[in-house]
Amino acid sequence: MIILRNSIMIKFFLLVSITIFLTVLSHAQINNSFNLMPLPVSLKVNENLLRITRNFRVSVIGNTNARIYFQASRFIRRLSDKTGIFLDGQAYVIKKDSSVSAALVIRIQRPGLLAVDEDESYSLVTDANHVEISATTDLGAIHGLETILQLVSSDANGYYIPGINIQDEPRFAWRGLLLDVALHFMPVDMVKRTLNGMAVVKMNVLHLHLINDQGFRVESKLFPRLQEVSSDGNFYTQEEIRGIVKYADHLGIRVVPEFVVPAHTTAILTAYPEFASVKRDYSLQRYFGVFDPVMDPTNENLYLFLDKLFGEMSALFPDAYFHIGGDENTGKDWAGVPDIKSFMQLHGMKTTIDLQTYFNQRILPIVRKYGKIMVGWDEILHPSLPKEVVIQSWRGNESFYASVRQGYKAILSFGYYIDLIQPASYHYQIDPIPDSVKFTMEEKKRVLGGEATMWSELITPVTVDSRIWPRTAAIAERLWSPKSVTDTDEMYRRLDIVSLQLESVGLQHITYKQVLLRQLSAGWDTHALEVLVNVLEPLKIYERNEGDTMYTVFSPFTKLADVASPDQTIPRIFRKQVDSFLVNPSSTLYGEITEKLILWKDNDVQFREILRNSPILQEAAQLSENLSTLASAGLEAIQFIKDQKKPAADWLQHKLNIVKHAREQGGRCQLQVVDAIQKLIISAAGK
Amino acid sequence: MIILRNSIMIKFFLLVSITIFLTVLSHAQINNSFNLMPLPVSLKVNENLLRITRNFRVSVIGNTNARIYFQASRFIRRLSDKTGIFLDGQAYVIKKDSSVSAALVIRIQRPGLLAVDEDESYSLVTDANHVEISATTDLGAIHGLETILQLVSSDANGYYIPGINIQDEPRFAWRGLLLDVALHFMPVDMVKRTLNGMAVVKMNVLHLHLINDQGFRVESKLFPRLQEVSSDGNFYTQEEIRGIVKYADHLGIRVVPEFVVPAHTTAILTAYPEFASVKRDYSLQRYFGVFDPVMDPTNENLYLFLDKLFGEMSALFPDAYFHIGGDENTGKDWAGVPDIKSFMQLHGMKTTIDLQTYFNQRILPIVRKYGKIMVGWDEILHPSLPKEVVIQSWRGNESFYASVRQGYKAILSFGYYIDLIQPASYHYQIDPIPDSVKFTMEEKKRVLGGEATMWSELITPVTVDSRIWPRTAAIAERLWSPKSVTDTDEMYRRLDIVSLQLESVGLQHITYKQVLLRQLSAGWDTHALEVLVNVLEPLKIYERNEGDTMYTVFSPFTKLADVASPDQTIPRIFRKQVDSFLVNPSSTLYGEITEKLILWKDNDVQFREILRNSPILQEAAQLSENLSTLASAGLEAIQFIKDQKKPAADWLQHKLNIVKHAREQGGRCQLQVVDAIQKLIISAAGK
Repeated sequence: MIILRNSIMIKFFLLVSITIFLTVLSHAQINNSFNLMPLPVSLKVNENLLRITRNFRVSVIGNTNARIYFQASRFIRRLSDKTGIFLDGQAYVIKKDSSVSAALVIRIQRPGLLAVDEDESYSLVTDANHVEISATTDLGAIHGLETILQLVSSDANGYYIPGINIQDEPRFAWRGLLLDVALHFMPVDMVKRTLNGMAVVKMNVLHLHLINDQGFRVESKLFPRLQEVSSDGNFYTQEEIRGIVKYADHLGIRVVPEFVVPAHTTAILTAYPEFASVKRDYSLQRYFGVFDPVMDPTNENLYLFLDKLFGEMSALFPDAYFHIGGDENTGKDWAGVPDIKSFMQLHGMKTTIDLQTYFNQRILPIVRKYGKIMVGWDEILHPSLPKEVVIQSWRGNESFYASVRQGYKAILSFGYYIDLIQPASYHYQIDPIPDSVKFTMEEKKRVLGGEATMWSELITPVTVDSRIWPRTAAIAERLWSPKSVTDTDEMYRRLDIVSLQLESVGLQHITYKQVLLRQLSAGWDTHALEVLVNVLEPLKIYERNEGDTMYTVFSPFTKLADVASPDQTIPRIFRKQVDSFLVNPSSTLYGEITEKLILWKDNDVQFREILRNSPILQEAAQLSENLSTLASAGLEAIQFIKDQKKPAADWLQHKLNIVKHAREQGGRCQLQVVDAIQKLIISAAGK
Repeated sequence: MIILRNSIMIKFFLLVSITIFLTVLSHAQINNSFNLMPLPVSLKVNENLLRITRNFRVSVIGNTNARIYFQASRFIRRLSDKTGIFLDGQAYVIKKDSSVSAALVIRIQRPGLLAVDEDESYSLVTDANHVEISATTDLGAIHGLETILQLVSSDANGYYIPGINIQDEPRFAWRGLLLDVALHFMPVDMVKRTLNGMAVVKMNVLHLHLINDQGFRVESKLFPRLQEVSSDGNFYTQEEIRGIVKYADHLGIRVVPEFVVPAHTTAILTAYPEFASVKRDYSLQRYFGVFDPVMDPTNENLYLFLDKLFGEMSALFPDAYFHIGGDENTGKDWAGVPDIKSFMQLHGMKTTIDLQTYFNQRILPIVRKYGKIMVGWDEILHPSLPKEVVIQSWRGNESFYASVRQGYKAILSFGYYIDLIQPASYHYQIDPIPDSVKFTMEEKKRVLGGEATMWSELITPVTVDSRIWPRTAAIAERLWSPKSVTDTDEMYRRLDIVSLQLESVGLQHITYKQVLLRQLSAGWDTHALEVLVNVLEPLKIYERNEGDTMYTVFSPFTKLADVASPDQTIPRIFRKQVDSFLVNPSSTLYGEITEKLILWKDNDVQFREILRNSPILQEAAQLSENLSTLASAGLEAIQFIKDQKKPAADWLQHKLNIVKHAREQGGRCQLQVVDAIQKLIISAAGK
């Protein structure tokens, strides 16, 4: 920690003129000393240091409202919980706590508006006697509070805030997380802990996907059949929605609701079949995927209904934006209805896409009427839509670039689909404005930011945290930090640390694993199962739910694929070790690699002991055996390499057959160490 | 599992005429084959067995309401989650699911009333093709569903429900848990998961302690200052209360609210100081303990206020019982006020106890008016109170026996104070009707049952589950199972298993430990800390919060004493091993004991590595060193015993000094292995 006393200026991200030497040094300092995520725009260290003592107090100076006091009080509790220091003297930070000599002084000019392009910048300076956060708005200040909690360090004398000077602001104004509570409902406390996690990594938009074919999740007082008939009892009351919105507000997070129309509306049509294009029996969809039911855009009563419903829902969500979905309309239920076809002919529409654009044009004034800006998925992009509409791109980058170039503001979600179980490193390298795209300054301004999307086909309240965190922190950094922050190894180093910070605000992404392992093992001894699970990832992209036919809303999500993780530490490190070994076969690396291979080889015997009491694990048996066989092959390979000997002529083919076999899925999972072991085998064979 | 095919009748608890041989066999069978908790009244095994397949369906026959369908549907989800079998075919059990040929048939005569003395019995029989639960009420049937989930077994062919015939009913009608949400507030989801846990072990009363000096926790629409001024924002809305009550009803659990008067009312007096006996500035109490503020029983407006308030609150809680507290009135704020003294003289009252009885007599008609039966702590016991009042004993057994003998119905909590951090074995041996007490049949009928009490001075939503569970399951068994069920070792064996069942319904008593260990270690490697924590218990009884002055509402409860546990498995087993070794010093036991002693001896070095990054653990440093020194002494001792050698003359005194030192507290914790190691030392010295 001595390095903190060093006052070398390291505003390294922006000051490209700084020498390479200094830049590298700065990076090293950051790596060793700080665990910030997202990384700030600029950071200097200085010689000061603020010890945290029992007398630590926080004061707030400026034009304030309840938000900053809520957050400052919460900060004190979190600091106390983290350090174990009794800060009972200041139960709450209140208006009269405005001393300039408090240990932490927060200076703000005004309460922030929860709006796109609000000022979220802050500065954070440690001087000889205190730490000061200065910000135009309290939104900036509460980002500063999160930064301090990440900075708190310790030495033999206790805890302290290091000497530091940070200037920070977000790169993008819209740093969102879509939480789908329609496909699998999520209870209020899950939403609130998600908000806690978002605040830790400075995200500022919770996009609630509230309805879909599987359910309608908000109480409507005007149309109570929506929750009575179409929610299975799983919906938020209006009081609960107000509670979520208020809590989010206190954390500086906007809540954007999505009420998807005209497709994905089986739940609405189950309650009000009169608005369907095709007359049939509607009931809540139990499977996942794209279905034909769609609202009838030729029915004038539909617009009266949506006017009232959107009016009621708009009043619940104070945010300026209102998401109307608009995605995945198959058009089949329109194409097959004579009246609708006549309507299209009458109005000169050639395709169902034209009809959906007509529908959108009818919806737009309703959304406007309630003072909202309409947002929709990229399907709604059409020259006839006015430029006020915001496009959220999910089908690819091209629709995103096209939207921006055509004059629309846009949000990128393509590449941030965290439900597809890709590693953090994949999402981390997706930049909304990559170098390859040449936007004008005006176009750049229309890039609002991005949104990670947590679609909930295959998750439950037990597993959802692990599907969001910690990976989403990498996306949060992408959307906050300077574009030049791209070092993946360094991201993973900090991700391991931020993961614990996320746990300390109530997230269950770490603990859920042992819960499921104990359930799967039907007992307390989970060791052999954990060894196996630690090298498994669920099938990625859309593979797990093969053809959308394997799982329903009520399937058990307590199985192997639910405890396996997209971003395993052990395989990641193993891959690196193998790559290094193949360049430089040191005995240290040899030892580390063989230790793992032996563990995997021998694990199958113990795994079978667990399996005897747990038929639920039968689907893992082949994987466990494959891992053992594969590890044996890896051990042979690394031995050949170490001994600088060559295997027999047929050895390679035999081992490649093992590799091929080891790529097969089991329990909707795959082994994550196959490529690395294959490399060892090929290298051993001298290929 | 072969033993399940055996059809020997083992109705062992009630049929005292059965031979000793058979009884012992029966116990052994249960021990080996079933993991029920609480144990049923009678259990036979038969040759049948019901495989759980994808086609498993549940039907309900009888006069029903929503409760049984809610529970049967929840049963299907839990069975599916546990076995991994897709039971999607029956998303919900509904009225038309009434086939007599379903895999599980539930027959009930009528919906149960959530009332004391309602029939909660059930029978559970596996025949050749299905399992049948029969019960008078759905309350009995849902106990049967919990029993089935505990019975589900597996073999090489998958999961099954064993062949069984159970007749079961509770010993006591009132099997409660007091949850104190006043001293530390508990969020709604914590209350709901607590209800889940209670249902697993067949408890049926949630006693919510809703107000105290530290806060008023329910929204009052008539007196909104109560939550606005006196809750720190931590209260349940009326909608949330209704949600809790409804959820509890679906689980067959009554909710009894407690609104403590006239003392412990600082929160009420903060909002409405006009009802105080002494005029002073009132603000929410931040410390814990017994305080002087008390309502003024001579103020007629107080009764008008309480009439309205209790009226409003009575309507929120449909249960027939209404708890008015009545405990811990110091009387000082009455004794010092001239007007109150005059009032007492005028009415011939000699003591403040007389005055409180007067107050109780004024409260009683209010409670009656709203159709409720008054419950109070044993302080209210007074000959002038009518026999309809129910006494809850907490200060000792004597008040309990006295209440019963004087004709009151009574609930026992003395001995079930789980906040006092005593082991499950202690609570398990507390019987509401011990053999030493000779009650008449009539008196026995007045013993309603008991309540575990989770007072929340020193707990938070993070730690609370670990303070309730799994220990409370032992109390639940005491209150449900036949009196003869008293084998502590067998209780602990099943407690380990039921602990996992409790985790599977959402309780965090297991996972919280790793969360806190990671926080305390400031990292992922918690091993050395866990070795230490596994032999620590928090200071017991009222020692931890010395003189009620160490902790406030806002103290950090994230420290050593919060992760230490009252009922550690490792010390418990170690104690048994030492006791066995001292009787029979086998080499197996020698190996097991020395393995632990070596672990503890060597742990300190690694613990100090964690400590370097975690000043919060400084308070554990001495404990860790003491454990190491103590373990070294234990190793010397066991070696002397094994080698049948005698130590030098001064050896014993030297080691006993180490033992004495090892008894000192650190971080409000004590080592749990001192007695056992002392035994080794004394034995080694030949004493």
